[in-house]
Amino acid sequence: MYLSKYFLPNLKETPKEAEIVSHRLMLRSGMVRQQSAGIYSWLPLGLKVLRKIEGIIRDEQNRAGAVEILMPTIQSADLWRESGRYDVYGKEMLRITDRHKRDMLFGPTNEEMVTDIFRSYVRSYKDLPLNLYHIQWKFRDEVRPRFGVMRGREFLMKDAYSFDLDAEQARVAYNRMFVSYLRTFERMGVKAIPMRADTGPIGGDMSHEFLILADTGESGVFCHRDYLNLPVPSGDVDFDNADQLQEIVSTWTGPYAATDEMHDESEWQSVAKDDQLAARGIEVGHIFHFGTKYSDAMNAKVAGPDGAEHPVHMGSYGIGPSRLVGAIIEASHDENGIIWPESVAPFDLGLINLKSGDADTDAACENIYTSLTNAGLDVLYDDTDQRAGGKFARMDLIGLPNQLIVGPRGLANGEIELKNRKTGARQSLTIEAAINQLGGK
Amino acid sequence: MYLSKYFLPNLKETPKEAEIVSHRLMLRSGMVRQQSAGIYSWLPLGLKVLRKIEGIIRDEQNRAGAVEILMPTIQSADLWRESGRYDVYGKEMLRITDRHKRDMLFGPTNEEMVTDIFRSYVRSYKDLPLNLYHIQWKFRDEVRPRFGVMRGREFLMKDAYSFDLDAEQARVAYNRMFVSYLRTFERMGVKAIPMRADTGPIGGDMSHEFLILADTGESGVFCHRDYLNLPVPSGDVDFDNADQLQEIVSTWTGPYAATDEMHDESEWQSVAKDDQLAARGIEVGHIFHFGTKYSDAMNAKVAGPDGAEHPVHMGSYGIGPSRLVGAIIEASHDENGIIWPESVAPFDLGLINLKSGDADTDAACENIYTSLTNAGLDVLYDDTDQRAGGKFARMDLIGLPNQLIVGPRGLANGEIELKNRKTGARQSLTIEAAINQLGGK
Repeated sequence: MYLSKYFLPNLKETPKEAEIVSHRLMLRSGMVRQQSAGIYSWLPLGLKVLRKIEGIIRDEQNRAGAVEILMPTIQSADLWRESGRYDVYGKEMLRITDRHKRDMLFGPTNEEMVTDIFRSYVRSYKDLPLNLYHIQWKFRDEVRPRFGVMRGREFLMKDAYSFDLDAEQARVAYNRMFVSYLRTFERMGVKAIPMRADTGPIGGDMSHEFLILADTGESGVFCHRDYLNLPVPSGDVDFDNADQLQEIVSTWTGPYAATDEMHDESEWQSVAKDDQLAARGIEVGHIFHFGTKYSDAMNAKVAGPDGAEHPVHMGSYGIGPSRLVGAIIEASHDENGIIWPESVAPFDLGLINLKSGDADTDAACENIYTSLTNAGLDVLYDDTDQRAGGKFARMDLIGLPNQLIVGPRGLANGEIELKNRKTGARQSLTIEAAINQLGGK
Repeated sequence: MYLSKYFLPNLKETPKEAEIVSHRLMLRSGMVRQQSAGIYSWLPLGLKVLRKIEGIIRDEQNRAGAVEILMPTIQSADLWRESGRYDVYGKEMLRITDRHKRDMLFGPTNEEMVTDIFRSYVRSYKDLPLNLYHIQWKFRDEVRPRFGVMRGREFLMKDAYSFDLDAEQARVAYNRMFVSYLRTFERMGVKAIPMRADTGPIGGDMSHEFLILADTGESGVFCHRDYLNLPVPSGDVDFDNADQLQEIVSTWTGPYAATDEMHDESEWQSVAKDDQLAARGIEVGHIFHFGTKYSDAMNAKVAGPDGAEHPVHMGSYGIGPSRLVGAIIEASHDENGIIWPESVAPFDLGLINLKSGDADTDAACENIYTSLTNAGLDVLYDDTDQRAGGKFARMDLIGLPNQLIVGPRGLANGEIELKNRKTGARQSLTIEAAINQLGGK
């Protein structure tokens, strides 16, 4: 992508309303724009990151056997009256009346609707296990939305729902998502730690939150230092192997880990002082087992092997892709801007032309751009006539993993410069060597 | 994908509420489920088609130089008061009050919001031309939603918005999208014909609709038979070459073409009788040039080369991906079900095991499935224990381009059967030959 043809509106001033670093950096780098309180437009750079995060989530959900659907944003209030949550949910639910005076709402979550889909089609235990997920915009009318996309009102959520014949199989379904989440966050380049959690308004008796460690995190967390080095399951986990799944989950729930809400000081004191890690974290995923809470209320039953009808046992599993964009920045930035992990970077590489308009420099950049693009890299080429200082600052701000810097002085010696955004390391090398090194990935 | 692990809830009965064939087939094949009037869940098979359609649109928008963003679904009423459309829009607009009693709405279209984004960042003609598009769910509260996803209330729309310094450059922007649309629909395997259109509530002085011909179409259309054979622009169109674009647009707007709303009987009579094609069509795209209607009202100006401020000239360009799913079915089906064009088919191929549980047949199918999947094909493998008749009927219903039929009798002769869904042609061939023929694509 040529920067001159792109839409990357960087702000020079740090916006006053932004209280936390991810919000400031997202506004300054032109990733998002606030349209109303807690409601954002995703500008091109932000949208690319969001889509990469979505892609990793989708990939790992599919790997774990979940099947993707897409439920609408607008729901009928009738479904929520069936579950009893319509009156319980409070003012966070955006209630709507349509032209025929029917009560509707903008879905804050989808337990009711997916249970309705399930009961409409599935009749037999033979069609289980089933896990349906979707990635859709939700709305929760927070009193005081803040922290940018970290606590917005309109936000993207991946929510999966599992259906099983009994509690034992539901536990396997829960473990599948638990393991899938470990892989999902690892692939995004962040360390997420599962912690015992309160079940809140979803209900249920087993729940874990996944938190990313970040100094600016919203929650206090207390965990055993071992979590920093536990092995993350590889891509060949067998998601049909209940024992293997349980073993991974046991490993990842063995050492102490709790947010301040669930913290137990006496258990904590039994962890050796040197192993105690008290830090701050950001919740990026939350999984629940809630048994027959919704299937009982909404009459979602299947025939079992015994011929009798059984309410299905359910769980739900959320990840917030839009919140993750901010959370990853909180966990990975420096004073100059964002430092994207490679897997979620909006472009693989920034190419900086230090003298746009100079025929030789332009030609060298074109050559590099074409070669790297043909090698499958997604390159942002700064072909503008801005001064070098501004170009460097912008590339650091938007945080692409690598920068290639091309100017007439280096070219005279047959060399260009490669800079690693994270380490700051720079090396001079020939164009061919740079293309081989980057394009050979 | 193994059918036994998929979620493909086919209906045996033809749903009574479905008035048109695409709606019936989408319900029967388990592509969608109605949640409320005009509001649908997309089940796995339907979602795959929707995503393929989106992918083609995105690809062609990017090729034409448009840049993707994502605006939220919920908008502030204030923006619409600025343009004057808040009161004009009528009951189709879903109006919402949030917990702080602010007037909000579920966006039916985005001219106001995108103009607001533009004016917030762009100051100079040097940043033009600019075309921003997004693919987002919209809501229009139709009095009587019907025809399934063809006229739903919550629907997916790709809407692009162009910004240019003057009318001449805006014309080029319009032509870019015109040409892009020709390519977009061609790639989906349908013939779409551009027709002069009324501008309606969007406003403006130049507009074309793109209609797919289908016997069951909602609109009468009158066009010169030449449209059936006009050359569709290739992938190497230069979208920066205004003359080349204008030539293509002139070719595609030369012969007579109009919907019944815009039909001019005297012009029509000047078309030779043998060249007159009176048919029915379905609108799948609509493009508008509306000049400074919104930029004047909302004060979206840029500095020109003359140093003075000029309101930008705008256009908007819509395609309905969710509507297209239905429209393509209307244009491509037979009495047994859907016939997907390859580019939008949910899977490339259906693999039918005629005797699941038989060790040899299972092994042959596994081998074929693995080989074709490794070759990059997306295969739906019917590994269920249903009877052959039911399996054949389902594969025909869901309309995958090819079917591979594997049974013990054929295998005894070293042969399996390949059926083309569209032509009905069948051939017997060895497993190796089948894999080579299909996987070599």
